[in-house]
Amino acid sequence: MTTVFATIITIGDELLIGQVVDTNSAWMAQQLNEAGILVKQRISVGDNAADIVDALNKAAASSSIVLITGGLGPTADDITKPVLCKYFGTSLVMNDAALQNIQTIFTKLNRPLTERNIKQAEVPASCTVLQNARGTAPGMWFEQNGVVFVSMPGVPHEMKGMMTSDVLPRLAQHMQLPAVLHRTLLTAGIGESFLADLIADWEATLPANIKLAYLPNYGMVRLRLTATGPEKMILEKALDEQFTQLQSLVKEYMVTDRDEPLELVCARLLKAHTKVLVTAESCTGGYISHLITSHAGSSDYYAGSIVSYSYYLKQQLLGVKPDTLKKQGAVSEAVVTEMALGALQNTEADYAIAVSGIMGPGGATPDKPVGTVWMAVAGPNGVDTQLMQFRFDRRRNIELTATFALNMLRKRLVQDLGE
Amino acid sequence: MTTVFATIITIGDELLIGQVVDTNSAWMAQQLNEAGILVKQRISVGDNAADIVDALNKAAASSSIVLITGGLGPTADDITKPVLCKYFGTSLVMNDAALQNIQTIFTKLNRPLTERNIKQAEVPASCTVLQNARGTAPGMWFEQNGVVFVSMPGVPHEMKGMMTSDVLPRLAQHMQLPAVLHRTLLTAGIGESFLADLIADWEATLPANIKLAYLPNYGMVRLRLTATGPEKMILEKALDEQFTQLQSLVKEYMVTDRDEPLELVCARLLKAHTKVLVTAESCTGGYISHLITSHAGSSDYYAGSIVSYSYYLKQQLLGVKPDTLKKQGAVSEAVVTEMALGALQNTEADYAIAVSGIMGPGGATPDKPVGTVWMAVAGPNGVDTQLMQFRFDRRRNIELTATFALNMLRKRLVQDLGE
Repeated sequence: MTTVFATIITIGDELLIGQVVDTNSAWMAQQLNEAGILVKQRISVGDNAADIVDALNKAAASSSIVLITGGLGPTADDITKPVLCKYFGTSLVMNDAALQNIQTIFTKLNRPLTERNIKQAEVPASCTVLQNARGTAPGMWFEQNGVVFVSMPGVPHEMKGMMTSDVLPRLAQHMQLPAVLHRTLLTAGIGESFLADLIADWEATLPANIKLAYLPNYGMVRLRLTATGPEKMILEKALDEQFTQLQSLVKEYMVTDRDEPLELVCARLLKAHTKVLVTAESCTGGYISHLITSHAGSSDYYAGSIVSYSYYLKQQLLGVKPDTLKKQGAVSEAVVTEMALGALQNTEADYAIAVSGIMGPGGATPDKPVGTVWMAVAGPNGVDTQLMQFRFDRRRNIELTATFALNMLRKRLVQDLGE
Repeated sequence: MTTVFATIITIGDELLIGQVVDTNSAWMAQQLNEAGILVKQRISVGDNAADIVDALNKAAASSSIVLITGGLGPTADDITKPVLCKYFGTSLVMNDAALQNIQTIFTKLNRPLTERNIKQAEVPASCTVLQNARGTAPGMWFEQNGVVFVSMPGVPHEMKGMMTSDVLPRLAQHMQLPAVLHRTLLTAGIGESFLADLIADWEATLPANIKLAYLPNYGMVRLRLTATGPEKMILEKALDEQFTQLQSLVKEYMVTDRDEPLELVCARLLKAHTKVLVTAESCTGGYISHLITSHAGSSDYYAGSIVSYSYYLKQQLLGVKPDTLKKQGAVSEAVVTEMALGALQNTEADYAIAVSGIMGPGGATPDKPVGTVWMAVAGPNGVDTQLMQFRFDRRRNIELTATFALNMLRKRLVQDLGE
C-alpha cells in the first residue's frame, strides 16, 4: 500500500492580507489524517487566476488528492469556478439540484432570488456536483490523470458539512488508505529540552513508521506519537507499546494521556466525583468560563462565573472587603482568596477558581509589572494561592493565566479526589 | 516602482496534521501589507528536508522576500537550520551573542544549560543573525540572487517581536516599497449578493489600482477597499474619494467605517458618553465578556459579567424569579428580561446585555430546537428583546449569539446617545 498524499489549497485575498486566520486548513488536515491521508503541503493564494492555476499544478505534482476551499461566493471577486473550467477544459452548465437548493434557502429566508444567486447553481460540466446542505455554493469533484480535485465553499461550517457527508466517504471509497494512528499526552512543569533529554534513549529506538513530535504551548509540552502502516490492528499494538513506555518515562510530569485540552481534564475529574466548579475572574474577563462552556455538557459540573471587572462587583457579588481592596490592591493574595471564598459562598459550588492580575499594556505599578497575576483555588480543604509573573502581550497573558489556573485546579482535584 | 511580492513559509508537522492553527501567517501577512509588500502565497510544509527545499525554490521563483517560521526548536524534529545550511551552501558556526542570550535566559529561569540549548546558538555561517529578545532561537537573514530569506522561530510572540524590531525595519531599508492603503467598513442586515447589486454600478467604475473585497462573517458583511501606488498622499486622496462614495451607498446598513470589531464600536459609544455596561450571560458562557475584555482599557466602560450557567446563579445573583424559570423555562423572553434588569440592579451599570439559549448539540426540546436564543438589552429607556434561531454548531452558535447581542446593544446606544 502506497502512502496517499493530499494538498490543501485555500483561496482568497483575505488570507493574504491577514484579515482572516485560515482555520479551514487545520480542520481539513485533521480529518484527512484520521482517514489515513497525509497532508503534503498547504498553499494559500489570492483570488487571482494565474496563482490559482499555479497552485493546482504544484499540488497535482506531489499529491493524488487536492482539496480546495474558497472563491465560490456570488460576487465579482470570486473566480474559482471559471478558473476550474479553464483548468479542466470545460464550461459552466446549470445544475438543477443546486438551483433547487438555492431556491429552497431563499424561500426560507423570505428573500427574492437575484441573478447572482442563480449563477451560483452553475457548475463546470465535467465535475460531479456535491450538494451543499448548509449554503448556496455547490461543491465540485473532478478527476484528472489519477488526481482527485475537490472544490468546496470557504465558509467553515459549509465546508465541514460537505467534507463529513460527502468528501471523506467518497475518498475512502475511491482509494486504498493506510491506517494512521496518533497517541498524545500533555506534560507540565518541564521544559522542551529537558523532556527531550529525559526520553532521548527511548526516542532513538522508535521504529521508522512511528514518529514523535514535541508541541510546546503555554508553558506545557504536548508529545504526540504518530504511526502509519497497512494493518490497523498490528499498528495499534505497536503504537500502544511505545506509548506505554513514553508514559512511564514522563509519568511525573503527565497531565493527561489523551488529546484533550486542560479544561476537559478538569471536567472529567469534576464529573466523576459529581463536584461543581464556579469561577471568579477579574483579569481573564470571562475567558476561563468561555473555555469551560465551549464544551457541550459543561452545565453538569459548572455553575458559572462572576466576572468582576469593577471593584463594585468584587464587593457586591463576591463579598471582597473594601478594606482589603484599599490596603492590598485588587491584584493581591488577600483579594483572590476573598474572591474564591466569596464565589463558593454565593453559589452552591464545591470548588472555585479566582484570578486577578495586570494583563497589559497599561495598569502596571512599580511593584506590580504587566503580567503579575495572583490566582487561588478554594475547595473543601481550604485555599491554595499562587503568584505568577508572565511577560507577554495581553492576549497571551490572558491565555496563560487561564491555563495555569486550570492546572492549579487540576492538581487540587487530583489531591482531593484521586486521579 | 515595481510591486514587491513575499511568500510566507510555515514549517512544522503539527500544521499538516491540524493540531495547530497557523495564526503566524495571518499576522505576518497583515504586517507585510501595511509595509507595502504584497503576499503572493502562503505555504505550509512538514519537518521534511525535501519539502522545505521545494517550498524555498517555489517561493524564490515568485517573490523577492521569503519569510520562514518554525523548525528552530532544540529537539530532533526541528530541522530547518541544517536544511538552510545545505540550501545556501554553508555550515553551522557558534554565534556568541546568541549563546550569551541563551545563557542569560537560563540563568534567569535558574535552570542548567544543556547541550541541546547550547546548540540553539549555532547559525549558518553566511547569514546575518537576528537576536531573539523573547526566546532562545535566533533568527537568520540570508540574501541570494536578489531574494531575501528570513528564518524566524515559530513561537508566535517570539516571531512577532523579531518582525517588529528587526525584520520589518530591515526590509523597509533594503527595498523601495509602494504604498498600500486599506479602508474597511462593516454592514449588518443585508446579504452579500444584495450588497453587491446595490454597489455594482459604482464598483464597475473603480480604477485598476483600487480593489474591493467582500468579507462576510456572522451574518454581517465587511467591505474592504485596497489601493496600491507609488505616492502615498495621492493614493490616500483617491482612496478616500471612493470610500466616501461607498459609504453613502451603503449608509443605511453601515455599522462602522473603521476596521474594528463590533465590541469596539460599542466601546467607543459607551466611552464617549461615560456609560458602563454589564453582561448577564447564560448560553455564551462568558464569551461576550471575553470579547469585551480582550481590549485594553475595557475597565473604563465595562463592569463585568454574571455568567449564570446554573438556575441557582440566575436566581441568586440576577434575581430571576424561580416561578419565571419554572413556567417559562430558562430560554424565554421573561427570563432574559429579568436577567438584564437584575444585572442592572445588582451593579452600577447603565446598560445590560442578557442572553439565554440552546447552543447544542444537546438540550433541545420540541418547541426550542438547537440554536434558539433569547436576548435582551436593558438601559435607561427600558428593555429590548429579540428571539433568534441559529442553525449551526455549538462554537458558531456562541459566536453568532455574541455578535447579534452586541449589535442589539449598538443599535440601542445609537438611539439613546446618538452616533
